[in-house]
Amino acid sequence: MDTRTGLPVVGMVGGGQLARMTHQAAISLGQSLRVLAESPDDSAALVAADVRIGTHTDLAALREFAKGCEAVTFDHEHVPTEHIATLAAEGVAIYPGADAIVYAQDKQRMRVRLADLGAPVPQWRSVATVGDISGFADEVGWPVMAKATRGGYDGRGVWLLGSVADAAPLVESGISLIVEERVPLRRELAALVARSPFGQVAAYPVVETVQRDGICVEVLAPAPGLSEKLAIEAQQLAIDLANALGVVGLLAVELFETDAGIVVNELAMRPHNSGHWTIEGARTSQFEQHLRAVLDYPMGSTSLTAPAVVMANVLGGPSGGISIDERLHHLFATDPAARVHLYGKQVRPGRKIGHVTVLGDDMVSVRARAARAAQWLQEGN
Amino acid sequence: MDTRTGLPVVGMVGGGQLARMTHQAAISLGQSLRVLAESPDDSAALVAADVRIGTHTDLAALREFAKGCEAVTFDHEHVPTEHIATLAAEGVAIYPGADAIVYAQDKQRMRVRLADLGAPVPQWRSVATVGDISGFADEVGWPVMAKATRGGYDGRGVWLLGSVADAAPLVESGISLIVEERVPLRRELAALVARSPFGQVAAYPVVETVQRDGICVEVLAPAPGLSEKLAIEAQQLAIDLANALGVVGLLAVELFETDAGIVVNELAMRPHNSGHWTIEGARTSQFEQHLRAVLDYPMGSTSLTAPAVVMANVLGGPSGGISIDERLHHLFATDPAARVHLYGKQVRPGRKIGHVTVLGDDMVSVRARAARAAQWLQEGN
Repeated sequence: MDTRTGLPVVGMVGGGQLARMTHQAAISLGQSLRVLAESPDDSAALVAADVRIGTHTDLAALREFAKGCEAVTFDHEHVPTEHIATLAAEGVAIYPGADAIVYAQDKQRMRVRLADLGAPVPQWRSVATVGDISGFADEVGWPVMAKATRGGYDGRGVWLLGSVADAAPLVESGISLIVEERVPLRRELAALVARSPFGQVAAYPVVETVQRDGICVEVLAPAPGLSEKLAIEAQQLAIDLANALGVVGLLAVELFETDAGIVVNELAMRPHNSGHWTIEGARTSQFEQHLRAVLDYPMGSTSLTAPAVVMANVLGGPSGGISIDERLHHLFATDPAARVHLYGKQVRPGRKIGHVTVLGDDMVSVRARAARAAQWLQEGN
Repeated sequence: MDTRTGLPVVGMVGGGQLARMTHQAAISLGQSLRVLAESPDDSAALVAADVRIGTHTDLAALREFAKGCEAVTFDHEHVPTEHIATLAAEGVAIYPGADAIVYAQDKQRMRVRLADLGAPVPQWRSVATVGDISGFADEVGWPVMAKATRGGYDGRGVWLLGSVADAAPLVESGISLIVEERVPLRRELAALVARSPFGQVAAYPVVETVQRDGICVEVLAPAPGLSEKLAIEAQQLAIDLANALGVVGLLAVELFETDAGIVVNELAMRPHNSGHWTIEGARTSQFEQHLRAVLDYPMGSTSLTAPAVVMANVLGGPSGGISIDERLHHLFATDPAARVHLYGKQVRPGRKIGHVTVLGDDMVSVRARAARAAQWLQEGN
């Protein structure tokens, strides 16, 4: 409890843009997010008042960080499961707990558990040898997807394998892998829910996520043309998984939509790129919702604030050209209603440096505006 | 320029809730607001990363604070005009400038200037002696309003005088005063605009402000039942004043609506309580708009995001009862769509400690919800 305000202190491990935007949400709740950052130049460390420098793999640093926090949570999935369990055993309210977050950390354990729960998942196999991959591919057909069981994100840790020749060097590299069928997908969807320790669950409208080179570039809310039946099925699946896995905080379920229905691709248990649109597009942002969940406050309304909402990521463009500040001038002149979020990050090609959200009545025009705005910030034209 | 981000640094003098909410807006623009606070426990100092401790009347402190800022602006009107002029002469981009802000600092100079400009103002008189007040009251009728020319806010520095007997002790106290007719008002309105150095002006929808004991308790956006003609007149007046006075940043024009039309009550040149509703209720919040203005970015859209928006202030209630944290639990359970903003301030009776915003289609029900939400946070019931 912050004795100056009489309000709780939440600590977030990791100083990226998710912590940055969570701090922004915390301010409205009378709070000041405590951030464990690797460096004072981290995205969240640039804007938060209560920043501790330390490493998320250092148990002593985590222990010190947690002192005086009403709840501790995460900006990423990389805190060792055993550290989370240790802190919880020592009385820290740390969410999501080790028993839940392990399914967002380890794809193999996630696949096993989801299959046990009867959730729709792609066909998959554990990999110890090249033979495991080729045997699996003989059943489902080449190409297949190999995935690192731990540590992948934004297209990293995922490989499309066309033959045994592709598979061999990957297996020999010693990375722990699973292999999955290449799902014949129509498109990707995401279902975002938040769950409190009390057990209240709030579900956001299901969105479409558009990927390019394995990186999410656009999110359309609500998912255009999604049948009511499939939307409810996706929300129910996310709610069931949050309950079954005992998630506290946000759970983002990345889905493939296929001709046969929906299939779970990935799980994330933190504010998620597929939910950035909620800052302006939902009555309660995912960042405030995550804080409410980990503090066991009642959940906020997840209603849309406009019929069509599009979030477009801004990736670092080629170097040179006009500065990011000049680009912002041009964008503001071009579209006075575009909502810009910059993360205070150095521009590197392909790095997520911000996002833009556009709201309106018509998805087609809203999407075009969002894409144009992101393009301006990315390329300066 | 912040070399870590390539984005500008804005400094705000004063660490109250206006700076706190401006920092929140700055985060989206990739910035981190620099705050000059009196104490590390000030509302904004609790949440901002770049806090300097100092006094707004100390020229050396202001000079040091301004170093490296692309623009310097204010959370209040109490920086001495001559310090602002000195810094501007030394090359600091400080907004609003001394020539403008003096009209928000000094009610006598404001009245003289507005009358010169032909703006509608109440009948008023300078006060040197009790005879000035009684002579004026003989013309316009008792009671009359006495106002301190400098330093008043939230009902302080304003006195309703019924007779010479009321006037005498006030004049003898030596406070510099003006006296005004008591305007026979229907209600109070506010017109908020932002102006950039380039000269672009953006006007928000005109709102109704509801006062109790001289403190704003509610803001209704847009002002219910306001004629199109009067709304445009009020916006045009605010735009004309911003241009004529050379305001850079926000200008809030507090207005009386009378049977004969609108009359200017007060001017403020900073984010203003009558504009807090814009955080969720307008496409661009007043806080972001102020930053855009002082940085000479193009202005953002001022469109409403819902047909009816009500902001209700949360004042410190009587001590005792359940804690502010428990009150928040109850409010969230009662109205999951109410938007809460707490300022991290110690609760003192009558002190503004936060506000609540509710959005919807129908002003009557939205207003009832906002009042109930504020009541919950204020009284715990």
